[in-house]
Amino acid sequence: MAGRELDVDVVVVGAGLAGARTARLLHDAGLRVAVLEARERVGGRTLARPIGAGTFDLGGQWIGPAQARVTRLVRELGIRTFATYTEGTKVLLDRDRRRTYRGEIPSLSIPQLLRMQLALLGLERERKRVPAADPTAARDAKRLDAMTLETLRARYRLDHATRGAMDAAVRTIFGAEAADLSALYFLAYLNAGGGLMALAGTRGGAQEERLVGGVQQLSRRLLDGIEVHLDAPVEQVQVREGRVVLTTPHLRARARRAVFALPPTQLRGIAFDPVLPAGRRQLLDRAFMGSAVKMLALYDRPFWREAGLSGELVCGDGPLSVVFDNSSHDDRQPALVGFVVGRHARVLSTRDGDAARRAVLDALVRAFGPAAGRPSELILQDWSAEPYVGGCPVALFGPGALLPSSGHLRTPLGPLHFAGTETAREHIGYLEGALESAERVFSEVQSAGL
Amino acid sequence: MAGRELDVDVVVVGAGLAGARTARLLHDAGLRVAVLEARERVGGRTLARPIGAGTFDLGGQWIGPAQARVTRLVRELGIRTFATYTEGTKVLLDRDRRRTYRGEIPSLSIPQLLRMQLALLGLERERKRVPAADPTAARDAKRLDAMTLETLRARYRLDHATRGAMDAAVRTIFGAEAADLSALYFLAYLNAGGGLMALAGTRGGAQEERLVGGVQQLSRRLLDGIEVHLDAPVEQVQVREGRVVLTTPHLRARARRAVFALPPTQLRGIAFDPVLPAGRRQLLDRAFMGSAVKMLALYDRPFWREAGLSGELVCGDGPLSVVFDNSSHDDRQPALVGFVVGRHARVLSTRDGDAARRAVLDALVRAFGPAAGRPSELILQDWSAEPYVGGCPVALFGPGALLPSSGHLRTPLGPLHFAGTETAREHIGYLEGALESAERVFSEVQSAGL
Repeated sequence: MAGRELDVDVVVVGAGLAGARTARLLHDAGLRVAVLEARERVGGRTLARPIGAGTFDLGGQWIGPAQARVTRLVRELGIRTFATYTEGTKVLLDRDRRRTYRGEIPSLSIPQLLRMQLALLGLERERKRVPAADPTAARDAKRLDAMTLETLRARYRLDHATRGAMDAAVRTIFGAEAADLSALYFLAYLNAGGGLMALAGTRGGAQEERLVGGVQQLSRRLLDGIEVHLDAPVEQVQVREGRVVLTTPHLRARARRAVFALPPTQLRGIAFDPVLPAGRRQLLDRAFMGSAVKMLALYDRPFWREAGLSGELVCGDGPLSVVFDNSSHDDRQPALVGFVVGRHARVLSTRDGDAARRAVLDALVRAFGPAAGRPSELILQDWSAEPYVGGCPVALFGPGALLPSSGHLRTPLGPLHFAGTETAREHIGYLEGALESAERVFSEVQSAGL
Repeated sequence: MAGRELDVDVVVVGAGLAGARTARLLHDAGLRVAVLEARERVGGRTLARPIGAGTFDLGGQWIGPAQARVTRLVRELGIRTFATYTEGTKVLLDRDRRRTYRGEIPSLSIPQLLRMQLALLGLERERKRVPAADPTAARDAKRLDAMTLETLRARYRLDHATRGAMDAAVRTIFGAEAADLSALYFLAYLNAGGGLMALAGTRGGAQEERLVGGVQQLSRRLLDGIEVHLDAPVEQVQVREGRVVLTTPHLRARARRAVFALPPTQLRGIAFDPVLPAGRRQLLDRAFMGSAVKMLALYDRPFWREAGLSGELVCGDGPLSVVFDNSSHDDRQPALVGFVVGRHARVLSTRDGDAARRAVLDALVRAFGPAAGRPSELILQDWSAEPYVGGCPVALFGPGALLPSSGHLRTPLGPLHFAGTETAREHIGYLEGALESAERVFSEVQSAGL
């Protein structure tokens, strides 16, 4: 225990994008900063690897036009971007039925489309009334936080196909079911990201572009020249006379301030002394991580493009909820990316590797034909198995969790500050939210006169 | 780290009632057993202290006639019991209105009573269809797990007073709001305990009797002569070739089997190697502890009895949800016990001590008159502030948590076994459930041939 001793101005706990950006801002402002990362690598929920003839993201991978901070950062770092391939026909699987369509919304019957539109309009109206930065300030916050999204949407009486399309979107955005989510938290989250269609969409939406070389490089580049300690899980945090002492198995760090840039669920494993205030602990107690297995399938040829398909699949029944074309920026490595999310991820996680692969390939074949069953490589990245992460894309709240605890996730506690995409006031759950939280914490530390 | 080394047949983690009973059964069967307790005391969510002229439970305190195991254990240990005082008139506070009543159900108007009866009958019918041991086996499990209890009961269109009475019962039983709970979990929990009225009741119900000397002595007496290590929080558990190594800051224990008798939320803080299966971890991720502050108010005279009141109070608006007479068995120390629970506990936890005391005393005065405002001693025991417990009375599940994870809480994993009242198939959340879980784990270990 505590072989090495550090003494700095600020310790940042967590080297994901939020932590990396916070550390960079503090470092550039002239402060002595050290980053403690529990794992053997930086990047948190972003992870890129050279696979086949390309470099692929096994974690977060997209940026959208509404996300100003990440767009600016990518430009500043001189990283090239490229558009998600969207040309051609999309596929909707609904039970045994396979439909193809173009545009944003699956080709359903006229009554189905009307219901779907009604539901989307209704949710748009509802979500605009729930402030993303403080959902508890909504007029009918209590009513909305007492029900699940499943209950909220029941009024729209969607049929199986339409429900399925919405399920696929909700699962992919949250890694969870409509049954799992507080309707209030769902609406705030939509509002933070510009609405359901913006979050679910490719062109003009949150899945518009990718980064050449992958997203993990953002954290790596931001941390360039900054003192980072890997394999340094913080076990204990003591606050004594306004100063902070952080203990890891092999290192002890003293600092004037500490920034926690972790999923809120990970804070539960740290022994704070004095203990965190009761309201905060009870809120953390109730956070849970979304469940997501990311699939990457590499192929020798982009056979779906050749058949006039975009590679996009929406499926309400699982195991894959959505699929996109994920070929490398230079098209040298054709690929599909897909998400087994929410309930389907929790089921898939319990299967052995072969059974999981078969289930996923079977869905690809149903959507794209037999060639989809023969990838040159198939990767299933189960984020719920990742140590110090525990799930993806984001931590969530069920009904009843938020209301007595407004603002608790991000409120600083003396010299302790809290970043991470879950604490964001815009684009919660996205790279953009991570950056927003870093900027907020930076100004908190600055206005504390450090 | 790991100064002392132990080598035993079974390590039991947690010296609450479930752990103590498991250790006793294993020890009496001739096995070498060691108990590792994170805290400086045994008893878990039971805690008794001499206060004033009596000994009072600041944690779990009641037993009921339907609870056969705990009744038998109490008799075997020769502990005397005494009945909760219930003579006289009860009080219902509803907004500014104070009503008094006798019997089980507050004296409401006829239409109110009809609605209340209808709701109770409806819940009785629903709960009988949800098996306590496996709620996911219920016919409409999916529908029920996709909604909160708040949504489930909305159909009964209860008015403010009736809702308030039910809120008080739900808060006291669960430490949570109707908005927080999966309707499925709520119904299974009711079923495990014999229904809402049995769980909420005194005479004939789960609050019928108390133990002379308090409940914590059960754990102490069961552990008599067994090797217990206090201040030994388990940080790491390794399973290697079917054997278990448990590491605490000052001790390392090797065993053929390990039994975890902890609230499921506390398992999240232990580093398992290999990691727990994904389904299990995702279920644990979603558990949260109820919020409960237990109030004990001592008085020089039982002024409420003298005024013909039983001391029982039901209040839907908080801060106190229910109050009971809690005088010592010999009546030498008059006392009231009350519960600030659910949302009201989360709010009270954030207040400073004086404000919290004032809020509670104000409610007592409204119910029982000015004498209630002058206790000789007033204790507010906030269980969410207790290390290695984190809340009371029990860990809970919101919507969507249970369904893909049937049985996961109690399923053994190789040489790892899981006890604790949350894993019970009967009387979940009660002393009785803790004992039931201990008996199950004992037979698991036995049939493993150890």
